[in-house]
Amino acid sequence: MVTPAYKAPFPVEKARRYLEPGPIVLVSSAWQGECNVMTLGWHTVMAFSPSLVGCLISSGNHSFELVRQSRECVINLPTTALTDTVIGIGNSSGAEIDKFARFGLTTEPADRVGAPRIRECHAHFECRLVDDSLVDRYDFFIWEIIAAHVAETPAYPETLHYTGDGIFMVTGEVIDRRQQFLPQML
Amino acid sequence: MVTPAYKAPFPVEKARRYLEPGPIVLVSSAWQGECNVMTLGWHTVMAFSPSLVGCLISSGNHSFELVRQSRECVINLPTTALTDTVIGIGNSSGAEIDKFARFGLTTEPADRVGAPRIRECHAHFECRLVDDSLVDRYDFFIWEIIAAHVAETPAYPETLHYTGDGIFMVTGEVIDRRQQFLPQML
Repeated sequence: MVTPAYKAPFPVEKARRYLEPGPIVLVSSAWQGECNVMTLGWHTVMAFSPSLVGCLISSGNHSFELVRQSRECVINLPTTALTDTVIGIGNSSGAEIDKFARFGLTTEPADRVGAPRIRECHAHFECRLVDDSLVDRYDFFIWEIIAAHVAETPAYPETLHYTGDGIFMVTGEVIDRRQQFLPQML
Repeated sequence: MVTPAYKAPFPVEKARRYLEPGPIVLVSSAWQGECNVMTLGWHTVMAFSPSLVGCLISSGNHSFELVRQSRECVINLPTTALTDTVIGIGNSSGAEIDKFARFGLTTEPADRVGAPRIRECHAHFECRLVDDSLVDRYDFFIWEIIAAHVAETPAYPETLHYTGDGIFMVTGEVIDRRQQFLPQML
């Protein structure tokens, strides 16, 4: 398992750079001495500033109560170096095991929330809950990213994009089309 | 420009197969004789059945009033064959031009909504608005997919995943890890 080097603070309003492509993420949470981590593929950027992200965290997940009660989480971005770990986390429950221990993940204190960062991930987005009005109906949480840290290399990490049925697509080629964009669209 | 062959009906509850990976999509809309199409990267699956998708459509977009008034749209999935088209659509406004004509796109009637499908796309998800409670605050629309059609090949099309700044990541490798999943997670 590759542990990324130092992560630099990253502007929260640019979180779309990592989240808009739609990667599987690892959401870590903590509440009353208990920590957990879950895989999550149902998320979307919702605003640049404040930096908002909406996530679907099913009430059937052990993490549900931890994030709902603490009103905080960290969205960690794994790369393909963590593929087996991502699958293991998605196929086990924090109600039964300590996933950090089982999968050899290193927790680190976050700057601004109680949930831990996961050192082996490429980036960390520390979040606080700003709107729970759709939690009861859809399990949909709207978070504000209040701190972000990102490994400086690689610039475009290989991320995992889930299709269901145990099958992932991996991001590969990066295509730069800045020249085709209007200046105000960049 | 490659026009995909016939598209087969696809189970709406399996839409995550194409949308969860987080591709840029083309949202088509129609209202009172006017049609438009926009690029959209801020979306998330929200439920399997009913098949729900949440989308951020900024009130600054010409499509905003068309989808809000008609309460319908089609989410079309472009592949990398349409990269230039996707960029062109994202860098122009339906208030100024007919984007379908400008970019040589072929509209087709949808089965269950008034918005058109875009033939050159790989898949079409016909949507009706089921929850507009977050539209005023966040421009966030919750859609139910009520019909879906997908080209039969390729099984895993190359899609575009936007990072901002005119730069896209492209899905490449497909990795099948079904054997590592619990049966109930598939």
